[in-house]
Amino acid sequence: MSQAEANRGQVDREALARRFRAFIDPAYVISDDETLKPYECDGLSVYCEMPMLVVLPETVEQAQQVLRICHAEGIPVVARGAGTGLCAGAMPHPEGVVLSMAKFNRILEIDPLARAARVQPGVRNLAISEAAAVHGLYYGPDPSSQIACTIGGNVAENSGGVHCLKYGLTVHNLLSVELLTVEGERLSIGSEGLDSCGADLLALLTGSEGLLGVVTEVRIKLLPKPEVAQVVMAGFDSVQTAGDAVGAIIAEGIIPGGLEMMDSHAIVAAEAFAKAGYPVDAQALLLCEVDGTEEEVQEHIEAVENLFRRLGATSVRTSHSEEERARLWQGRKSAFPAVGRISPDYYCMDGTIPRSQLAHVLTEMDKMSEACGLRVANVFHAGDGNLHPLILFDANVPGELEKTEAFGARILELCVDVGGCITGEHGVGVEKIRQMPKQFNEQELSQFHRIKAAFDPAGTLNPGKGVPTLRQCQEYRSLDMNIEPNAGAQAQHEGRCRHD
Amino acid sequence: MSQAEANRGQVDREALARRFRAFIDPAYVISDDETLKPYECDGLSVYCEMPMLVVLPETVEQAQQVLRICHAEGIPVVARGAGTGLCAGAMPHPEGVVLSMAKFNRILEIDPLARAARVQPGVRNLAISEAAAVHGLYYGPDPSSQIACTIGGNVAENSGGVHCLKYGLTVHNLLSVELLTVEGERLSIGSEGLDSCGADLLALLTGSEGLLGVVTEVRIKLLPKPEVAQVVMAGFDSVQTAGDAVGAIIAEGIIPGGLEMMDSHAIVAAEAFAKAGYPVDAQALLLCEVDGTEEEVQEHIEAVENLFRRLGATSVRTSHSEEERARLWQGRKSAFPAVGRISPDYYCMDGTIPRSQLAHVLTEMDKMSEACGLRVANVFHAGDGNLHPLILFDANVPGELEKTEAFGARILELCVDVGGCITGEHGVGVEKIRQMPKQFNEQELSQFHRIKAAFDPAGTLNPGKGVPTLRQCQEYRSLDMNIEPNAGAQAQHEGRCRHD
Repeated sequence: MSQAEANRGQVDREALARRFRAFIDPAYVISDDETLKPYECDGLSVYCEMPMLVVLPETVEQAQQVLRICHAEGIPVVARGAGTGLCAGAMPHPEGVVLSMAKFNRILEIDPLARAARVQPGVRNLAISEAAAVHGLYYGPDPSSQIACTIGGNVAENSGGVHCLKYGLTVHNLLSVELLTVEGERLSIGSEGLDSCGADLLALLTGSEGLLGVVTEVRIKLLPKPEVAQVVMAGFDSVQTAGDAVGAIIAEGIIPGGLEMMDSHAIVAAEAFAKAGYPVDAQALLLCEVDGTEEEVQEHIEAVENLFRRLGATSVRTSHSEEERARLWQGRKSAFPAVGRISPDYYCMDGTIPRSQLAHVLTEMDKMSEACGLRVANVFHAGDGNLHPLILFDANVPGELEKTEAFGARILELCVDVGGCITGEHGVGVEKIRQMPKQFNEQELSQFHRIKAAFDPAGTLNPGKGVPTLRQCQEYRSLDMNIEPNAGAQAQHEGRCRHD
Repeated sequence: MSQAEANRGQVDREALARRFRAFIDPAYVISDDETLKPYECDGLSVYCEMPMLVVLPETVEQAQQVLRICHAEGIPVVARGAGTGLCAGAMPHPEGVVLSMAKFNRILEIDPLARAARVQPGVRNLAISEAAAVHGLYYGPDPSSQIACTIGGNVAENSGGVHCLKYGLTVHNLLSVELLTVEGERLSIGSEGLDSCGADLLALLTGSEGLLGVVTEVRIKLLPKPEVAQVVMAGFDSVQTAGDAVGAIIAEGIIPGGLEMMDSHAIVAAEAFAKAGYPVDAQALLLCEVDGTEEEVQEHIEAVENLFRRLGATSVRTSHSEEERARLWQGRKSAFPAVGRISPDYYCMDGTIPRSQLAHVLTEMDKMSEACGLRVANVFHAGDGNLHPLILFDANVPGELEKTEAFGARILELCVDVGGCITGEHGVGVEKIRQMPKQFNEQELSQFHRIKAAFDPAGTLNPGKGVPTLRQCQEYRSLDMNIEPNAGAQAQHEGRCRHD
């Protein structure tokens, strides 16, 4: 960058900061590099970019005014919650403003009669359940980041969690939102009831990754806490048998609260870390939790145990107290840090496949792992076919990050090939934008662009995320034809962090 | 109409019919008035319009070709299922083509392992459950027209039913659809998994009343049949007490399979017709069904009985066999024909309110009823606040239909005033388009128009339904200011049938 360019950036930034400071507490308009630094990425720190400015408005009117100014000047705006996302959906734009919703952190209403809560977008996911606990209620979706992630971010990425098989993703637990458009107009979307008239913009917004508007208030359903929950753990001598057992449980008419699978790499790592009592010689492990009334749980737990034994489980163990249940889950919940101990770095992928393809996909992944010389540990929401392969690598080995990304890309393509989808709960963001043309044809992508234009014709809301331009698609396709699959073409993305 | 105009219409019609007959079985291209007549309205026969043509394609390619031709010529297209809808959403356009999907009537796949079915849009709702029964599965949403209505129409109107409190509306039971755009392009929307990447077009399409595209294939979830179901019937001496009981059940953490309420007019009419054993002196009746495992149902039924008694129910009765259960429901299910016996005509409204407003809204409706001299019987899905007031009138009394429509409009406005919504499960169509500006502000309506334009810029898909133009909104507002609320301004709608 020439000195002139650098200066120009600097001048624009300070002038804009001054305009924002006229109506926002100056401490909440961040323009110095040191304070901007923590905003350079989200939870997927592979992709980083320094923003021009970060603003933290405290009122809807302030947020509106920020949007109006940016809209008038054509400045990109990236809305941000807690930044725990895993697809670089909240990665800043170098010439844009990060609109942090962190100050919108109030729970406005808990309505036990309507079993609903009205909260600001910056409220943490777990804080909602904590506030509702006094009424015997809780908020369903429980992403693993629930202690830190905010409900606004959950809406943006349509977050799931261990219990989404039974209780659904964010979109299934939302009642209404207040939205600011790119022009700063206020829209009320959704209704009190099950249905709402007009176009169903609520689901359209959920998971739209900040491309369509900025949420300023969220009304969500609360669920009654189940009386009791028990978990059955079963070891299997092949992923095939474990995969069959998953299908059999669902076919039996049981909807588990959670149904998780781990492969042998993950079992060994988790057991070494958490001492949960996992069978370290098993090739696959299932954790099946059933919740509900005492009688219901007893009946279903028995059915699950019998089914596991009938299908050849090598070991079956059931929790009989809250402590036992917590211990069995402990291994699964610490699987990520556990894997972190056996490898300098790991890259968590996210894709969805039909349940019937579990065994096939795991076998194929093993082959790919061998071919590219990178280990992969599998931890996933088996019940809804949501995979989380953890690719183990060492960022200090030159080229290994690029190889990892290429491996990840091939896993996503495998998901599409078997009739699945390139995301389960993490979103597309920057990370998976390259796989979108694999998932969708040109007509479908064009339709997404028309939807985007219906909200944001100039394209200043979170540009470069979620949906590739048709030109990008052509580039990706021509690159794919000219290079080896594991040569790391994705490394050419400008926003990728340099780990040096 | 001048002779010249009539001729022109005639010529265009026959020329177009010939073009269609080149690739569609000529018997399935209808152009004579007598055969067109049954298509002039949907289940809400208040609004009628003769179409120019009706076509019944048998393949996706034929439907594509129809759309391409209409798109090129700027001819309106109204897609149609079984025509059982209740908001005139399928009312034809006088210069348009009705695209009947009746020949798309095959069940393509029942997948018990994935608990899903893939069907063509013209398959009847109940036929899906019948086909899935052999696997112990069924399709959740059960609109009262389920014996006749088709899944394509269910998607278009986001249909509900008695059990939607627990099992959701159509949108909650859909996995994916194949869609034709107005240009005849094919789009695949949705995925196998819980989440899908890209914009969530699936929910956007559900309930979009044929304004965005034509569905040619639907993949839906199937549910395991509950082991057992029991229903508790309770009479109350005021709607207030019954309304409180509804709130109390939900607050208790019980999610009934169905929770229905009837007021005294409906109780008396239903009992006279069905002899279900309803307490005819009660002011309100609740039917609360609980389904699940044997133990779960027993526990919840006991809780519901106790709760009803504690809250002052004047009578409580529980079904102890399938026969008893069927009889208790019989009254509710025959409430519409029963009301038909006590009045020459009735008009079934549909609106949603917060559960807490039940008693207030019923009282207000009583006042309105008295003021305009029309009786109203109330039958509704109390659990989700979905009202179905039946306004009793005599179409042979001059002006009474207009008075009825004006009363209906005021009921919808009351729903909006208490924080509710102008539809529960019937949709907006033509019937409620006038109330849309009451429900939404100009920014919100503009956003709907932008969404519509993102799919159908020329506006030839089902024109005049769902969302009013901004000019219409202004007209409605100025009319509302100049006329008495019950003077029947809606009667001026051109498509309204003449009952003479």
